[in-house]
Amino acid sequence: MSGRHHLFVPGPTNVPDRVLRAMHRAQEDHRSSAFPELTHGLLRDLKPVFGANDGRPFIFAATGTGMWEAALTNTLAPGDRVLAARFGQFSHLFIDTAERLGFRVDVIDVEWGEAVDPGLIGAALAADKAHAIKAVLLVHNETATGVTNDLAGIREAMDEARHPALLLVDGVSSIGSLDFQFDVWGVDVAICGSQKGFMMPAGLGMLCVSPEALGRIETNRFPRAYFDLRPQILHNDQGYFPYTPALAHLFGLREALDMLHEEGMAQVAARHARLAEGVRRAVHAWGLQLIARDPESRSNTVTGIVVPDGKDARHVIDHAFRRWDLALGSGLGRLNGRVFRIGHLGDVNALMLLGALAGTELALHDAGIPVPYGAGVAAAQRWYHESA
Amino acid sequence: MSGRHHLFVPGPTNVPDRVLRAMHRAQEDHRSSAFPELTHGLLRDLKPVFGANDGRPFIFAATGTGMWEAALTNTLAPGDRVLAARFGQFSHLFIDTAERLGFRVDVIDVEWGEAVDPGLIGAALAADKAHAIKAVLLVHNETATGVTNDLAGIREAMDEARHPALLLVDGVSSIGSLDFQFDVWGVDVAICGSQKGFMMPAGLGMLCVSPEALGRIETNRFPRAYFDLRPQILHNDQGYFPYTPALAHLFGLREALDMLHEEGMAQVAARHARLAEGVRRAVHAWGLQLIARDPESRSNTVTGIVVPDGKDARHVIDHAFRRWDLALGSGLGRLNGRVFRIGHLGDVNALMLLGALAGTELALHDAGIPVPYGAGVAAAQRWYHESA
Amino acid sequence: MSGRHHLFVPGPTNVPDRVLRAMHRAQEDHRSSAFPELTHGLLRDLKPVFGANDGRPFIFAATGTGMWEAALTNTLAPGDRVLAARFGQFSHLFIDTAERLGFRVDVIDVEWGEAVDPGLIGAALAADKAHAIKAVLLVHNETATGVTNDLAGIREAMDEARHPALLLVDGVSSIGSLDFQFDVWGVDVAICGSQKGFMMPAGLGMLCVSPEALGRIETNRFPRAYFDLRPQILHNDQGYFPYTPALAHLFGLREALDMLHEEGMAQVAARHARLAEGVRRAVHAWGLQLIARDPESRSNTVTGIVVPDGKDARHVIDHAFRRWDLALGSGLGRLNGRVFRIGHLGDVNALMLLGALAGTELALHDAGIPVPYGAGVAAAQRWYHESA
Amino acid sequence: MSGRHHLFVPGPTNVPDRVLRAMHRAQEDHRSSAFPELTHGLLRDLKPVFGANDGRPFIFAATGTGMWEAALTNTLAPGDRVLAARFGQFSHLFIDTAERLGFRVDVIDVEWGEAVDPGLIGAALAADKAHAIKAVLLVHNETATGVTNDLAGIREAMDEARHPALLLVDGVSSIGSLDFQFDVWGVDVAICGSQKGFMMPAGLGMLCVSPEALGRIETNRFPRAYFDLRPQILHNDQGYFPYTPALAHLFGLREALDMLHEEGMAQVAARHARLAEGVRRAVHAWGLQLIARDPESRSNTVTGIVVPDGKDARHVIDHAFRRWDLALGSGLGRLNGRVFRIGHLGDVNALMLLGALAGTELALHDAGIPVPYGAGVAAAQRWYHESA
Repeated sequence: MSGRHHLFVPGPTNVPDRVLRAMHRAQEDHRSSAFPELTHGLLRDLKPVFGANDGRPFIFAATGTGMWEAALTNTLAPGDRVLAARFGQFSHLFIDTAERLGFRVDVIDVEWGEAVDPGLIGAALAADKAHAIKAVLLVHNETATGVTNDLAGIREAMDEARHPALLLVDGVSSIGSLDFQFDVWGVDVAICGSQKGFMMPAGLGMLCVSPEALGRIETNRFPRAYFDLRPQILHNDQGYFPYTPALAHLFGLREALDMLHEEGMAQVAARHARLAEGVRRAVHAWGLQLIARDPESRSNTVTGIVVPDGKDARHVIDHAFRRWDLALGSGLGRLNGRVFRIGHLGDVNALMLLGALAGTELALHDAGIPVPYGAGVAAAQRWYHESA
Repeated sequence: MSGRHHLFVPGPTNVPDRVLRAMHRAQEDHRSSAFPELTHGLLRDLKPVFGANDGRPFIFAATGTGMWEAALTNTLAPGDRVLAARFGQFSHLFIDTAERLGFRVDVIDVEWGEAVDPGLIGAALAADKAHAIKAVLLVHNETATGVTNDLAGIREAMDEARHPALLLVDGVSSIGSLDFQFDVWGVDVAICGSQKGFMMPAGLGMLCVSPEALGRIETNRFPRAYFDLRPQILHNDQGYFPYTPALAHLFGLREALDMLHEEGMAQVAARHARLAEGVRRAVHAWGLQLIARDPESRSNTVTGIVVPDGKDARHVIDHAFRRWDLALGSGLGRLNGRVFRIGHLGDVNALMLLGALAGTELALHDAGIPVPYGAGVAAAQRWYHESA
Repeated sequence: MSGRHHLFVPGPTNVPDRVLRAMHRAQEDHRSSAFPELTHGLLRDLKPVFGANDGRPFIFAATGTGMWEAALTNTLAPGDRVLAARFGQFSHLFIDTAERLGFRVDVIDVEWGEAVDPGLIGAALAADKAHAIKAVLLVHNETATGVTNDLAGIREAMDEARHPALLLVDGVSSIGSLDFQFDVWGVDVAICGSQKGFMMPAGLGMLCVSPEALGRIETNRFPRAYFDLRPQILHNDQGYFPYTPALAHLFGLREALDMLHEEGMAQVAARHARLAEGVRRAVHAWGLQLIARDPESRSNTVTGIVVPDGKDARHVIDHAFRRWDLALGSGLGRLNGRVFRIGHLGDVNALMLLGALAGTELALHDAGIPVPYGAGVAAAQRWYHESA
Repeated sequence: MSGRHHLFVPGPTNVPDRVLRAMHRAQEDHRSSAFPELTHGLLRDLKPVFGANDGRPFIFAATGTGMWEAALTNTLAPGDRVLAARFGQFSHLFIDTAERLGFRVDVIDVEWGEAVDPGLIGAALAADKAHAIKAVLLVHNETATGVTNDLAGIREAMDEARHPALLLVDGVSSIGSLDFQFDVWGVDVAICGSQKGFMMPAGLGMLCVSPEALGRIETNRFPRAYFDLRPQILHNDQGYFPYTPALAHLFGLREALDMLHEEGMAQVAARHARLAEGVRRAVHAWGLQLIARDPESRSNTVTGIVVPDGKDARHVIDHAFRRWDLALGSGLGRLNGRVFRIGHLGDVNALMLLGALAGTELALHDAGIPVPYGAGVAAAQRWYHESA
């Protein structure tokens, strides 16, 4: 096919040319005397992306999935009890990971498409007088549904319950794109990966860990090696890594952090909010529904769209891919066939999205869902024009 | 600005990642025993892009402007008389180049926006009983107006006039994108550059020369050095170049030729025709006029759009560039302010153009030309859908 | 500093331009219908690099360290007893990883610089009548000393002991460079990383697993998630990965596998043998000693060189880095200060090594070890000339 | 072949990764309002590379050969008489170009391998009482022999002769590598290309023009178009180019200029002097002769080496290329077979050269010229060590 492929899944996202160029570089000795400058700079500049001053960041050659394991195994003892909300495929998998690692998970099931009511978390913790629950596991932004949770509210509920559980947050599709306040929200471990808001290829997992959580790591007896934070701390302090780091990705991360900070984290979040609103207005103009029902919790990084009864979202995705060179996200887990998703995070702008919306309209037609041509595009244009 | 810049000037065009990668390569000795394989392969695979079997191609480190000089100075004697049509800025500059080199140019002035009537060429040649006119200079596709000439018709008119003038054709914005039949149309020298249909950065000029024109080169006494074809012939025959070639561009050309031939030249032309029609339908839906009046001669590589009286096309271009990260082509020469242009050649596809059309609608609003949002996009969508 | 940096640590190795170019590419949807072609091709072409027909390969976003964990946790139950030889820093760390994961390790300590006597393995297994030992952990090529173990001999010793222990082999600095015969040697799990013989940046870990070991995975109850092979099998069978793969590295791996197979694995091993012999002859000409005492077990991927008493190998490395833009490997663990290392694996050729040897001679002078200038270079030249 | 190719011809030179990366970039509209920043910055930063404050630089999509034509046709009238020295293949070709363009050239023939005696220039000019000679054509550094002329001495001789001839200097293999003082030496036009000291792929030609020479351009009546400086001046003043510039090369030039100025032009020249001396000492240690006889005029960018009688330099080059992946320069013109050349300009360092010298020793052996292994390397090492 001629021309550029249009990648609008909610990760991996489009890698800016600047980052690709930065990664296209000869390797270096990761034990050289010049290396610590790179390491220290990355760790320093990661902190404001998490909204962390007190938190300590870590970088792994891994993906976000590995970071779930790192968050759990470094802070929890074998068999510990945790509380988690399930409201989409990724919160489901976070829970699944915890269970496969032998933790006992109290699951709060929430309708897929809804955010987690902080009151439910608060109530569950308040009921746990014995403080048997050691941690709350929460996905900040559920990539499968396009729902963003109210982390400030959840922190408030936890505080009101006066419960000492750690707060372990999956920020894979939020950190680097949405407002994230590690310190303010009292997060204990926040995890993310390189292939979404960080605008890089997949392959790096990143953590931010609170002083409280760090305090537990040294004595925590969960058997772990690759994701053990203790050797990381030891080596990072000197500017090194305990084993060969994914150097090309570190070069890319250096450039991505420069780009984020050049734009400014507040502006990054504002840009994502503006771009997302255009997509939502397009969906409304098509007469289709979002899987995220509550306007307050609709995600600014990904939008999940429900196809009409009797239609198959997989056809939309297939036609988009094969006829229009447009990659849309599929409905995951129980949403398969009912939902398709548009990712609008990372290195995107209004015209890229207008092209993707135009392509989505074409693919909807192909799939027997004849929205009016240009209607979604026009709705988004109007918004982008007035908000420019 | 975040996200990809949208480049829709009619050259330089978007360079595909494959070509950029191919150019990102260590240099080599251009006199090595391995080098001729590259040279011979390029020259061989250039021929079908020109539609040439008999013609001989040449490659220079230069731009299309240099190729005008090469075409003229290799085939014409100092002070020779030539016939040329002027119907846009590039045909004007081709004439200007000829005059600066001391040739006497009989100019047929044609309204900018119209194609050249082959009858006018035929009549001028028929009137030249003494055969004082040594060459006809013609721009195949006038990039400034988006008008494509009928080269088959012009050849027919020349044949009917039984006039021996050479036919020197500027194919800068047609060769590699539009159907081009060097042999069939009896072209004597066709010129092009790397930065349009060849999908590369500017920096290479290419020629194709007929056996008839080649016959004149050896004895032609125009003083010339850099663009002299004689040393090129001598060295190209051995697989080399008379001076250091622009090697990175040769690597890029290798990849670009592979891409063109993988798609097939007929399919390349068909793709450009389909994509261009979408743009024209969008302009029609906006209620705006093309500068190219005759549907038969509207270009499939670039579309020139007239803004309403009292409006300034430069404002459209400025807003597109600064607010929407979209580069549109300006009106050149006497069309400055009255016309803006959309390039739709090279490595493009439908969704890229739909994004550009959406951006153009936004910029038109910014410039006080409030076309209905989405109207042009919808018209193009309908066409792309039915022609898919 | 001007000119190219000279990277001669035993990993990361020099990434060929072909591989860097292949990694410089737009991201794609890892769930698209086109994706399985990439996955299946990689897994198919990995097998001959391991020398495996029966074994099954796996690819992780991780480093070799993570592969240790994957090998252990997928095949062994919590607290299982294993046998391992320690004869350098990496075999030490493999043991350390096993212990941190809760396994009980019977350690055979071997002088650093010597290979493991297969008889010792055989004897230990023979003594274990109850078959309490569930696996033998062995580093094929000890990167810290430049010693290659005799895996065929070890397999023979295990067979003679008629012991059912699995054979888990670290081939990080051998696979892709040295002859490796997964099937013939009866290896159960072989692990490697991307940044050595695979000529890529660090960031991918790879495994090959025997049918015998695969049989244990399904029921093995070690708590694991990221490195669990079960979801990998499920998804790989369909051409996918259970979570977002490190796509840029997969593109690089595609190119690296093409390069390895174009050269042929036997020729790859022969080239490493020839290049290594030149380095050893240079060291001999310098009058210095190898840490690897037995000529039979000297590694063809890395050479560890002992500095004379009273000298500090760290000074050699420092001067090489700062004055000559040459990265040499340091002495690890107890060899720190006594040994420096030259890596000669991956994408290297004779002239690259001759430059590195010349630079090493300069750095030796800087560090107060005045070997005769050019003496090592000349010894290597002679060998390269006669073996050309 | 595995590993890096070793490019040691005197152009094209090794392009640093920084420059390759800078060229790997999406194209832009060369008529945009943002473009002048690039143009003005390049022209500003080119001046100190020429050693020019008063001179005005120009940039063309062309090679150095085209710059000869530009220098001549912009400043001289058709048929003008010029004085030139011939002392190698490139000075020969400069003269040949002038003659093909119709200029009458008074040639001072100098033994190939010697520099031009300024007294000969002075005498020829002094004898031209009528000032019929309009320009002196001089190659600063003859790439074919490795000889650098004394431009200060030649300027002095011209001044003593009180002759108004312009001084047109080819600095293709000197500017950007050797000390060059455009203003101080009273150069009128200096020309160079991108593929030597500028460390880029071939494809850009650059000029610097004195106010005196600029004064002649406006009225000079030599027929010219592509290389005409008048439209360049007009457009450059506004930050643009009269026709599509070779944008990828401009991006590369931006990076190359940054690298040169980061190092500092004086340090660049000092580095070239130091590196060249090592090569010369190696040749001496081999017992071979330089074609450049006078130590004072030996070039710091390229060294031409004479093979013993009865031997063929082409065999050295062939074996170097095919067996050792090393590209050496051939003997040009009448030196073919007698001389081979080592380029040591641009992005090189000591270890790169030591590898190349080691490879040259191997190729000399292959060609039946058995210099002592390591002897040249050792001589260079000694020098690099003492001059470090």
